[in-house]
Amino acid sequence: MLKYQKIALEIEKYITVHSLKQGDKIPVIETLISQYKVSKSTIIKALNLLEDKGIVFMVRGSGTFVRGQIRKGYNNLLLTQDCREDDSKNPPFLRKIIGMEIVRAIPDVATALGLEEDSKVYSVRYVHYIEKQVLCMEQVFYNKNIISYLDKEIASESIFNYLKNILGLKIGFPDIYINLDKLNSEEASIFGLNIGDPMLCKEIIYHLASGQPFCYSRAVLNYKQAKFFIKGNRLNSYI
Amino acid sequence: MLKYQKIALEIEKYITVHSLKQGDKIPVIETLISQYKVSKSTIIKALNLLEDKGIVFMVRGSGTFVRGQIRKGYNNLLLTQDCREDDSKNPPFLRKIIGMEIVRAIPDVATALGLEEDSKVYSVRYVHYIEKQVLCMEQVFYNKNIISYLDKEIASESIFNYLKNILGLKIGFPDIYINLDKLNSEEASIFGLNIGDPMLCKEIIYHLASGQPFCYSRAVLNYKQAKFFIKGNRLNSYI
Repeated sequence: MLKYQKIALEIEKYITVHSLKQGDKIPVIETLISQYKVSKSTIIKALNLLEDKGIVFMVRGSGTFVRGQIRKGYNNLLLTQDCREDDSKNPPFLRKIIGMEIVRAIPDVATALGLEEDSKVYSVRYVHYIEKQVLCMEQVFYNKNIISYLDKEIASESIFNYLKNILGLKIGFPDIYINLDKLNSEEASIFGLNIGDPMLCKEIIYHLASGQPFCYSRAVLNYKQAKFFIKGNRLNSYI
Repeated sequence: MLKYQKIALEIEKYITVHSLKQGDKIPVIETLISQYKVSKSTIIKALNLLEDKGIVFMVRGSGTFVRGQIRKGYNNLLLTQDCREDDSKNPPFLRKIIGMEIVRAIPDVATALGLEEDSKVYSVRYVHYIEKQVLCMEQVFYNKNIISYLDKEIASESIFNYLKNILGLKIGFPDIYINLDKLNSEEASIFGLNIGDPMLCKEIIYHLASGQPFCYSRAVLNYKQAKFFIKGNRLNSYI
């Protein structure tokens, strides 16, 4: 983690500890410089990062202010918190692995991972629970050329930590797709819902920092739990 | 528009004109400096902006590369392209205003706009079409303390341009919420779908650059058209 990222985390903690609310001002740059004993450019980088993350907003000439809280029950779409990596430490969420195998990539999977059709990929299937209700069914494909070894134990823990810490891979950026459909009979019975009920399909293609896709996740979500928010920044509005 | 934003647009154009694809390298910083005759820090700011927008990704020590195309039929969730401001110039999309009035803010609307309950707000209702099919029904509320005058003509064009150019307001950031539900009988008949079919509810609260919310949009989308993508950046993945 770089210095400005650490400072950004510190400021985030400061906001939480002091229970700052929408519109509350955080200390001016000069104060932050002497508090954290870093350069002005490090502080500005940290504040830019927090603005990008939707934690603060900056008003030129006035200072930096806290952005509002988000409605309860909504998850950050970009943090993919619906289908968390390792939910065992995070009750009432729970993630169970229900299958793992090496399969040949069908066209969709091959396209997503930038592979030839029929290439070998790992397929791992998970069910995510909240309390005892099924929240999400997820199938994840890994490019076997990049992740040459995987077992159930690794797949039950945080695969991303394994990729970073053991395989030394640098994880880059995700492309996220969402669309809606109706539950088929199998899905309906797993969710305890009715055939034809709404479902959210959420796909994520993760790339290495080099731009190469290495992981493709397809999740079907219980529509009652599919509540997401995104804190847009300046770029994302009409302007 | 600031200089680095202009340069970012130029580079975006360059990528389009040269039909660059995922993984294609764009010219190195030194080349861009002499091409656009600006400082190194301006070029770096422009590249950071393009990275944030999901147009390029940077690999330390290697250069800047183009990010992949997005699947056809998917819209950028952050650009809110489902319900565009002025679709008349953008066939086959069309937006019709079906009602405009001054109403008292119900609790939800008051909360979203940071107003007292029963405050006066403008309510504008739109229907968005693609070909002749209803794509989206949208109701937009404007804080009357900020936007003191509005008429149907203004509401039929780009309200955001009016706010920026005529009222001189600085538009800031949006908070976006999505959730799923089932169509009721009225909605089903407007969409030409069945009662109980899935729908996507998308809400956006727009803030001024000062952080004050001024506009609250609630849209119900035809589930067949509700296909969105988000190009995440580094921040948004698990790390």
